[in-house]
Amino acid sequence: MKVLGLVVEYNPFHNGHFYHLSHSKEIVNPDVTVAVMSGNFVQRGEPAIVEKFARAKAALEQGVDLVLELPVVYSLQDAGGFATGSIWTLDHVGVTDVVFGSETDDIDLMKAVSKVLIKEPEHYQDLLKKHLKTGHSFPNARKYALRDFIHTENAALSHRIEEIGSSNNILGVEYLRAIQEIKSKMIPHSMRRVGASYTDEEHRGEFSSATAIRRLIQNGNIESASQTMPKESLDIILREIRCGRGPVFKEDVESFFISFFRLLSREDYCRYYGFVEGLDARFQECSIEGSLEGFLHCVKSKRFTLSRIRRLMYYPIFRFTDDLIRRSNELGPQYIRILGFNEKGRTYLSNIKHSTNIPIIATASLWRKVVDKSLKDEMKIDVDLLEAQLKRDFTAVRFYSSLYKYPESRARGSDLLSQIVYHRQER
Amino acid sequence: MKVLGLVVEYNPFHNGHFYHLSHSKEIVNPDVTVAVMSGNFVQRGEPAIVEKFARAKAALEQGVDLVLELPVVYSLQDAGGFATGSIWTLDHVGVTDVVFGSETDDIDLMKAVSKVLIKEPEHYQDLLKKHLKTGHSFPNARKYALRDFIHTENAALSHRIEEIGSSNNILGVEYLRAIQEIKSKMIPHSMRRVGASYTDEEHRGEFSSATAIRRLIQNGNIESASQTMPKESLDIILREIRCGRGPVFKEDVESFFISFFRLLSREDYCRYYGFVEGLDARFQECSIEGSLEGFLHCVKSKRFTLSRIRRLMYYPIFRFTDDLIRRSNELGPQYIRILGFNEKGRTYLSNIKHSTNIPIIATASLWRKVVDKSLKDEMKIDVDLLEAQLKRDFTAVRFYSSLYKYPESRARGSDLLSQIVYHRQER
Repeated sequence: MKVLGLVVEYNPFHNGHFYHLSHSKEIVNPDVTVAVMSGNFVQRGEPAIVEKFARAKAALEQGVDLVLELPVVYSLQDAGGFATGSIWTLDHVGVTDVVFGSETDDIDLMKAVSKVLIKEPEHYQDLLKKHLKTGHSFPNARKYALRDFIHTENAALSHRIEEIGSSNNILGVEYLRAIQEIKSKMIPHSMRRVGASYTDEEHRGEFSSATAIRRLIQNGNIESASQTMPKESLDIILREIRCGRGPVFKEDVESFFISFFRLLSREDYCRYYGFVEGLDARFQECSIEGSLEGFLHCVKSKRFTLSRIRRLMYYPIFRFTDDLIRRSNELGPQYIRILGFNEKGRTYLSNIKHSTNIPIIATASLWRKVVDKSLKDEMKIDVDLLEAQLKRDFTAVRFYSSLYKYPESRARGSDLLSQIVYHRQER
Repeated sequence: MKVLGLVVEYNPFHNGHFYHLSHSKEIVNPDVTVAVMSGNFVQRGEPAIVEKFARAKAALEQGVDLVLELPVVYSLQDAGGFATGSIWTLDHVGVTDVVFGSETDDIDLMKAVSKVLIKEPEHYQDLLKKHLKTGHSFPNARKYALRDFIHTENAALSHRIEEIGSSNNILGVEYLRAIQEIKSKMIPHSMRRVGASYTDEEHRGEFSSATAIRRLIQNGNIESASQTMPKESLDIILREIRCGRGPVFKEDVESFFISFFRLLSREDYCRYYGFVEGLDARFQECSIEGSLEGFLHCVKSKRFTLSRIRRLMYYPIFRFTDDLIRRSNELGPQYIRILGFNEKGRTYLSNIKHSTNIPIIATASLWRKVVDKSLKDEMKIDVDLLEAQLKRDFTAVRFYSSLYKYPESRARGSDLLSQIVYHRQER
């Protein structure tokens, strides 16, 4: 049996995603397709444009059979943590093949690089330290260290290594690393992306980036947006907007952050993961800035990339302590959270239900019952960690819905009131 | 030498305040007039309409000689804590006479009642418990217990006790209690208020309430507002608005509170003062409400008054722990903070400087130097408590300015950059 796995954010689901989904199916020819998707906060360190169940519905309508939630403790991490959480989730539900998009389809190169990341040979470590010492950010120092290392150790790959720096390629390498580290039997496939780079902010017609599409929607340019995404996908967003649930943009958290950061001291920041090398002091000093833009540029330096700072901003909010993130990356997600399925996905799920070794949570409000049953079934889960991870997903939903424009919509925003999406008509 | 002391909020300074100030001077005939004023957050549990230095300037223009800040740990407390902090501050600077407004000028009655509050005779305690048991809020239970107690113990006052319930009278009683408790030699005078009750929301012409005036300004009805307050006082507000500093209304904290409360658990609330009798659970459950109005009415019950809840909302924000509030009420303010003075006030201050027994802070950024000198001079201050109180004033300023509409104004909002007001022309 072939089970295709995809790691997605669908923020929102657009033509590029459709192409990736269809082409992945062509490569793997799966019996069932599973996507693990970021919840209400995505890896760029931003709220998603619409909430997770709406985005899961869009995925189901386009041919995904089962949509799982990537817990927020992973979705707001760097490429490494994001990949760890995603691959682990897919592995737990028996995915046989994962297809990821990248700027290159040179999977041999990516595998070679991921091996370096896992083994961390002494020479590589020295190179990494050297580049970090000159003040580079971690992603850049790593890129240069990998380049130098491959140049000396593997002449055959040497001329191809320059490609590895782009963010999608780094994610690909991290997927490969995660697959090896958790000893998954999953087969990785790499697929060349189409259309605009995902950070490209310009509208590029049919294959515009998610960033550009969000901007179109923000500016009310629905006509242009409709060219960039399946009709059903846009309809879902428009329905969400009519119901007062979003759209939520990164600007909508601005005033909260400005006020919130002014209440925190250096000691507060230090309690959370990633506030190292003086970032606690920088956050505290920059909290006097009057805009998020000003804040980000005040904190930013050669050493700290903007996207890292954007993600870190959420760590005090969702209380990502050192302990939480370290244990999450070491032990993986402690539950599978269903966002939606079609009949095929439902059937698949009930078939594997008894062979998974972490609890599957469909109705959030019943999570404690599910966990108790899992303990009776002697699943090896860390209940404290499970609760810590899951409660942060709940908090993320409550916080996300507090950003809605209308009090009535805000008031209904709770994961405990939510129902998973069942998509009736299959494609 | 006569030193008149006033406890004020001037939110904003209006004709009623002017009347109170002039009439107080007539009663006491002082050499110098000192006001202790709430900073950026007032006792109703709201941000002030404009920041403290602007309000201090208004006071100086109308004839106050010296304006001191009531630390936020007192300004956001109930009548008891508010009075304790205010009276203690006035006593520290040698105030000989305090005049407070009340609905009655029956100071004998108020003294009798304050004695009951200090001594808490057993019979009174029983009556208080009885009324609390029936579910009344503390202010109401206290009112009924005092009434019953006075009825049986002091027949002469019996028919006058009904008056004691109104909030200004309760404040008056608390001032008297504080004076007795800290063994101050200050002479209290009570003065009947003029014009509208301070919670009256309607515009009542010349003597409108501060609440009504804030609403006029909020609605842009500057013409009507100008009838209710001295011209200079309105000019200051208009200048502040032109500079982008305010006006700040209670609605401006709404979205922050809605988001912030969703991040807190019952355990979080329990760390702060006043979250007793299930208020932690109520706050947590009600955080799902979509508006502040909805939240307040969700938390409210016969037992908890709206104004108590409004104040409590700020306790997790400013971290008013049990320990902080208890020690603050036991030891009093640990510093005198100057907001402004005229020449007379400045001279007075330099005369008493060597006889006060807590440090006087004029330039906030130099606070540590002032404290070090005070310790050398062997002042008996609790430095930990001083720092805890003062840092909350700093936080209050940072948080307050984050509520401004324009990023440029928000960015300058720090107590450490502020300068006290020196008012040149005297009246």
